[in-house]
Amino acid sequence: MMNKNVETFIGADSTYEDAKMVIFGAPFDATTSFRPGTRFGSKAIRSDSFGIETYSPYQDLDLLDTAVFDAGDLELAFGSPEKALAQIEEMTTEILRHGKMPIMLGGEHLVSLAMARALVKQYPDLAIVHFDAHADLRDDYLGEKLSHACVMRRIWELVGDDRIFQFGIRSGDRTEFVWGKDHVQTQKFNFDHLTETVQALGNRPIYVTLDLDILDPSIFPGTGTPEAGGVTFNEILAALMHLKPLHVVAFDLNELSPVYDQSGVSTAVACKLLREMILLWAFH
Amino acid sequence: MMNKNVETFIGADSTYEDAKMVIFGAPFDATTSFRPGTRFGSKAIRSDSFGIETYSPYQDLDLLDTAVFDAGDLELAFGSPEKALAQIEEMTTEILRHGKMPIMLGGEHLVSLAMARALVKQYPDLAIVHFDAHADLRDDYLGEKLSHACVMRRIWELVGDDRIFQFGIRSGDRTEFVWGKDHVQTQKFNFDHLTETVQALGNRPIYVTLDLDILDPSIFPGTGTPEAGGVTFNEILAALMHLKPLHVVAFDLNELSPVYDQSGVSTAVACKLLREMILLWAFH
Amino acid sequence: MMNKNVETFIGADSTYEDAKMVIFGAPFDATTSFRPGTRFGSKAIRSDSFGIETYSPYQDLDLLDTAVFDAGDLELAFGSPEKALAQIEEMTTEILRHGKMPIMLGGEHLVSLAMARALVKQYPDLAIVHFDAHADLRDDYLGEKLSHACVMRRIWELVGDDRIFQFGIRSGDRTEFVWGKDHVQTQKFNFDHLTETVQALGNRPIYVTLDLDILDPSIFPGTGTPEAGGVTFNEILAALMHLKPLHVVAFDLNELSPVYDQSGVSTAVACKLLREMILLWAFH
Amino acid sequence: MMNKNVETFIGADSTYEDAKMVIFGAPFDATTSFRPGTRFGSKAIRSDSFGIETYSPYQDLDLLDTAVFDAGDLELAFGSPEKALAQIEEMTTEILRHGKMPIMLGGEHLVSLAMARALVKQYPDLAIVHFDAHADLRDDYLGEKLSHACVMRRIWELVGDDRIFQFGIRSGDRTEFVWGKDHVQTQKFNFDHLTETVQALGNRPIYVTLDLDILDPSIFPGTGTPEAGGVTFNEILAALMHLKPLHVVAFDLNELSPVYDQSGVSTAVACKLLREMILLWAFH
Amino acid sequence: MMNKNVETFIGADSTYEDAKMVIFGAPFDATTSFRPGTRFGSKAIRSDSFGIETYSPYQDLDLLDTAVFDAGDLELAFGSPEKALAQIEEMTTEILRHGKMPIMLGGEHLVSLAMARALVKQYPDLAIVHFDAHADLRDDYLGEKLSHACVMRRIWELVGDDRIFQFGIRSGDRTEFVWGKDHVQTQKFNFDHLTETVQALGNRPIYVTLDLDILDPSIFPGTGTPEAGGVTFNEILAALMHLKPLHVVAFDLNELSPVYDQSGVSTAVACKLLREMILLWAFH
Amino acid sequence: MMNKNVETFIGADSTYEDAKMVIFGAPFDATTSFRPGTRFGSKAIRSDSFGIETYSPYQDLDLLDTAVFDAGDLELAFGSPEKALAQIEEMTTEILRHGKMPIMLGGEHLVSLAMARALVKQYPDLAIVHFDAHADLRDDYLGEKLSHACVMRRIWELVGDDRIFQFGIRSGDRTEFVWGKDHVQTQKFNFDHLTETVQALGNRPIYVTLDLDILDPSIFPGTGTPEAGGVTFNEILAALMHLKPLHVVAFDLNELSPVYDQSGVSTAVACKLLREMILLWAFH
Repeated sequence: MMNKNVETFIGADSTYEDAKMVIFGAPFDATTSFRPGTRFGSKAIRSDSFGIETYSPYQDLDLLDTAVFDAGDLELAFGSPEKALAQIEEMTTEILRHGKMPIMLGGEHLVSLAMARALVKQYPDLAIVHFDAHADLRDDYLGEKLSHACVMRRIWELVGDDRIFQFGIRSGDRTEFVWGKDHVQTQKFNFDHLTETVQALGNRPIYVTLDLDILDPSIFPGTGTPEAGGVTFNEILAALMHLKPLHVVAFDLNELSPVYDQSGVSTAVACKLLREMILLWAFH
Repeated sequence: MMNKNVETFIGADSTYEDAKMVIFGAPFDATTSFRPGTRFGSKAIRSDSFGIETYSPYQDLDLLDTAVFDAGDLELAFGSPEKALAQIEEMTTEILRHGKMPIMLGGEHLVSLAMARALVKQYPDLAIVHFDAHADLRDDYLGEKLSHACVMRRIWELVGDDRIFQFGIRSGDRTEFVWGKDHVQTQKFNFDHLTETVQALGNRPIYVTLDLDILDPSIFPGTGTPEAGGVTFNEILAALMHLKPLHVVAFDLNELSPVYDQSGVSTAVACKLLREMILLWAFH
Repeated sequence: MMNKNVETFIGADSTYEDAKMVIFGAPFDATTSFRPGTRFGSKAIRSDSFGIETYSPYQDLDLLDTAVFDAGDLELAFGSPEKALAQIEEMTTEILRHGKMPIMLGGEHLVSLAMARALVKQYPDLAIVHFDAHADLRDDYLGEKLSHACVMRRIWELVGDDRIFQFGIRSGDRTEFVWGKDHVQTQKFNFDHLTETVQALGNRPIYVTLDLDILDPSIFPGTGTPEAGGVTFNEILAALMHLKPLHVVAFDLNELSPVYDQSGVSTAVACKLLREMILLWAFH
Repeated sequence: MMNKNVETFIGADSTYEDAKMVIFGAPFDATTSFRPGTRFGSKAIRSDSFGIETYSPYQDLDLLDTAVFDAGDLELAFGSPEKALAQIEEMTTEILRHGKMPIMLGGEHLVSLAMARALVKQYPDLAIVHFDAHADLRDDYLGEKLSHACVMRRIWELVGDDRIFQFGIRSGDRTEFVWGKDHVQTQKFNFDHLTETVQALGNRPIYVTLDLDILDPSIFPGTGTPEAGGVTFNEILAALMHLKPLHVVAFDLNELSPVYDQSGVSTAVACKLLREMILLWAFH
Repeated sequence: MMNKNVETFIGADSTYEDAKMVIFGAPFDATTSFRPGTRFGSKAIRSDSFGIETYSPYQDLDLLDTAVFDAGDLELAFGSPEKALAQIEEMTTEILRHGKMPIMLGGEHLVSLAMARALVKQYPDLAIVHFDAHADLRDDYLGEKLSHACVMRRIWELVGDDRIFQFGIRSGDRTEFVWGKDHVQTQKFNFDHLTETVQALGNRPIYVTLDLDILDPSIFPGTGTPEAGGVTFNEILAALMHLKPLHVVAFDLNELSPVYDQSGVSTAVACKLLREMILLWAFH
Repeated sequence: MMNKNVETFIGADSTYEDAKMVIFGAPFDATTSFRPGTRFGSKAIRSDSFGIETYSPYQDLDLLDTAVFDAGDLELAFGSPEKALAQIEEMTTEILRHGKMPIMLGGEHLVSLAMARALVKQYPDLAIVHFDAHADLRDDYLGEKLSHACVMRRIWELVGDDRIFQFGIRSGDRTEFVWGKDHVQTQKFNFDHLTETVQALGNRPIYVTLDLDILDPSIFPGTGTPEAGGVTFNEILAALMHLKPLHVVAFDLNELSPVYDQSGVSTAVACKLLREMILLWAFH
């Protein structure tokens, strides 16, 4: 008769059974080397989402017409990246098994490795569209293989050459860029050639992983490693719109760190991007 | 099979049916004249509660042994204090009808008027123990009768003389103190004579309303109207412990304003006091 | 011999009698549904204005050559939007009666309804140029007619169809956009077609209402409802310059919320826009 | 007919002519060696003063019954401490000449030297009651004679031995304490022996200079050099009450730095202490 | 001829060879479950230390008369608590081998396990004086043995029963308190019986580990898990003074998290306590 | 054997002897009239520099291949701008005498006068490229000749007409712009005509002085006087790249005020610009 307190992303009002998309949070930042705090990212997105509308004037679509379930945050093992990744992979696998699209809210970028592991089993020909300020292609970072700074290298080990398509990259060490030339497609600084990439991807299953620090820190200060010279909100939005025709099977948003988001603007940005991404693929 | 995201105060894991106590939030601050923001108080308490333990070394009791249900925040009508108060009163009445103890998280102090209205119908001989920095005894505030600064005056209109017992009061205009002398019991600055008050109250039904700004702003900066010279955490805790023998039928905590709580300390204080108050009366 | 402490917007040094323009603050935010605080906006603008120059290199004009009086903030009735609006309307009416141009500093956007009421009596053919992120065209918001989210709908009731010209709108629910198509002119996202609008307006009396959240949150984080994808400072400045030929009879700036402006940048932006707007029409 | 925006400390509503006390601000912090910002202290006190009541339940007195004029902040020469001090001295002298009590709001503590210079001319037998965390007895600080860290040494040069009575001192270099033993009375850490001091001072003219950092940083974080182990608000209040019988001819409060007062608590404390100090001596 | 930029704790000007005490930082917080950030604690202490004096009026001693070397922060392996602990242990061992007293600045409390491992090898009869808000006696925390919440349990495994003496403990789960009764000495809430403990410890080698969250959050907000009801600065200072006669062979301060210390007060407290602790045992 | 704690800008690992470039900080803000705090700028840059990479994907160059020495911050005389300037001049002169390029981190902009004095002695035909929001061409500011607002006027007195080339200027009083027309080259708002300027400068010795407030406050909020309408990060970066062919003999970055940089984004921007500027001229 009376309900427990339920807090979901705005408009995510479906039951699990009816849902076509399932949101879950992966509050993990244990390998963050500089400024931690992304563990609170998914929670902040949910909490501030009631500051935006469910309707998008960009797409003329409304979250109220979608079927999205918000499963809340995973309770991840602490101190052991490998265990936490296993939990995320299991969650993703379960959602896929029920024929729904998994949507993950980070957490640091390393969580995408777990989602990729689950996806690759289901979709062996998976390709990854990767939006980020950082290349994340190191083989190890200070000796560690499981680090946010190595996540795309680890994913490359799963999918192989020519399956990862990076845009907006403006930071990394020299070896990342050198190695990357032979193994992934890296567009530095911006979204040039995105149209060609989309065409080339055709109907392949796609995983979109969006590290929010691709945005310029002026509009997205709330992240651990701010990198000036990023893209604007309108640019990332336009880039995402370009991805609409793709066969996207899962996506994530990560690296929001609310403790550095004193004004709440970064969280509002993340909420709005999540709304737009849901609306892009909810009616496929 | 998979559950929606549920966020409750730590340890409030009971079903509504089994619960002996029911928490709800009243996110209302529309009459706040100085610095608004208490509308986010209940949400912050819930969110940060996982930073404290369920076990109290003060009372050697554990929330895990209680039966508490957290119903979340009411969605209150905006712009109309009277409508919002009606919603709160209705919620309180329903909880009372099911034989459970209502626990309200403000919001500004005006919300206590609504709870008092519901309680007085059930318990005509209700007495109120009022912890606060401010007397809240104005007849009107800038012409308004329904104001946080008038809440105890409005409650007095419900219960009459000698039924309100104030402690810790250190702010008000002269007329409040003069009027108060004839109608309520006011202990300025501290908890002197609390023991006598408890004895005098005997087995009467009691409503405990705790305006958190009774605490010194050193330990509770996160409130709209900080008043230096308040009580310490240990003093409020000891005062609450004195109330244990009373027949408490409802209580509230109010006036936490997270936007002025940059370090999170005030919210942590509120969480701990809520834990202790639950444990005080959960096993009656 | 010795003067009381007077704090005015920089360069607003005229007497009331000599003034051609009169600034006043409307510190009201009682219907704000998400994050309150705009009640402190006008005060912050005045206080931080001495961080900017009186001279504009954009217009090669100087506030020292204007005749502006700053009347300070109104002391508005609390808890009753209708009473507060009546006070604002009275103030505006008095300034108009003395043949001066009223300039209002919000507060939330609802205060513009009061100014519009006064203006429409003096100028029955008034048109409104409306810069905002939000359409503000709801008929009611959570049941309330007097809400910041309904302000342009209420103003439409005063002036009728084809008299409201909105620019920069990027948020609202679907019904607002649908309804708006038949009753107001809405330019989504940007200032396209502003030149045509200016031409069409000719010599009509114009009220310019500037909701500062039209700006991108990167440059204007200090507001209650940040909406990414807004215009830049240079874009809003250029748009305002386009309005110079118009017969502007009053204007306002609203929705600055200093508590979310930790760096002070939003307040500095508001100060600079106020300077430019004064200089645009002070020499007409 | 319409008034300019006037912002005064709450209840300071007298004309200059009728006033018995005159408040002015000395927004100066140019010699602050660690964290600057006290230049904004007086402004913040004025601005936030409307968050407190005019009535004191401690003294059962009301600012509405006093005659206080608030002259605002001096516009002090920048870059030249000596010029700024001359301006402050002149202001103090003028107020004294009109038979009114000057009340100064800092700024850093060096401003007290200027007030002392003016007072000593009028009252050659002036004694100083000095509340502070820091001894401020250095002969020079990094080579400078005019430094906040030297202010009591400079004042000693004006008044000589046994005329300065320090309380609460808990920081300084060794030479300050050694030198101080022979020239001033220093009570370390607390207010012990204050009663004896008050008795010994008899009817002498007294200047009370209150460096707010005497307070523990828990209740007064908003200052440049926080020193843990300070007195509580209730302790400073009690100490001030002890001074009531004294022939106080001027007083100041200084070292509030609003930029380190994120919650506003320090400013609220300063406002409340100013209210109490006014009420202590307004009816003499 | 020109020196590199060297930043040390104030007064730590000795060469390593001449030093009797050696400070090093252990910037580690990878097992922190709630709010991370203590990794920046040691750096902040060093940086803000020039805001305090080298002279202590409490002890009438001066850091300028000590021989302290500051080795800076260790560069700890990320992602692997065990590797990081090994590095800390090695550093401690080296300092001990050279006959100097190691002083560690955390980081989270887990770092004390590493120091204890090194100390126990050198001093098999080591006893630990533990100041903390939290018991830290869990056998595991969410399955992890190497967690800040388990640190004293791990140290107990090194030293056995009746060798750990806890004070100020006010948080933990029930099992910690139950287990603790048989294995360690726990003084809840305060420093009662500290004198007896000091007497009983006699001339044993002592490791003092100071979790700064033993302090009340009013004076120490800058920590991950604030627990109201803590000790005051004067109380912790007095407690430390009681330890002066002990044969202290090493000590640490930990759990300062600067990101939650907006005003800088917590860091100033840590600096002052470090000064006092150095002065307590520098002249032994 | 064990090293003192050394903190340098990332990658500045050379010895002084081997270095081709020498960084030093000038932590001075004593003439700042509005919001002080740039005294902490150089320290913050050093401290946060480990959040960026040593490799630049913009230039495909790496700080690890340069020879840069970081001498830390000067300890500047307080209260006397003239003395502080003399110390800075002496430092610059010494670095020049050893044939190395001096790189100064402010502090407020006045510090550039001191560097200019040293440079002009060595390079009588010095020209200055000046990036700033403010013209800084006042003859005096509130009566003071040595003020941040006069720094380019003072430098003009050293070098004469047509030797100062300003870009991005968008604030000043009218007299500055009028005077400037005859004596310096001022490009308002942007970098138009920078190419021509670079060509005209040929092989002259160049001092690049970068007031970071040339950047839009959206990306650089952390400064004392934010001026909306500034250039983007990509624009300043492109402008700096244009300067690569010049014979740059010294450069500075100034006006970062960390206390207004709550998110750390401004400091990250300063770090990245310093990296790029070093790489531009390190291999000449």
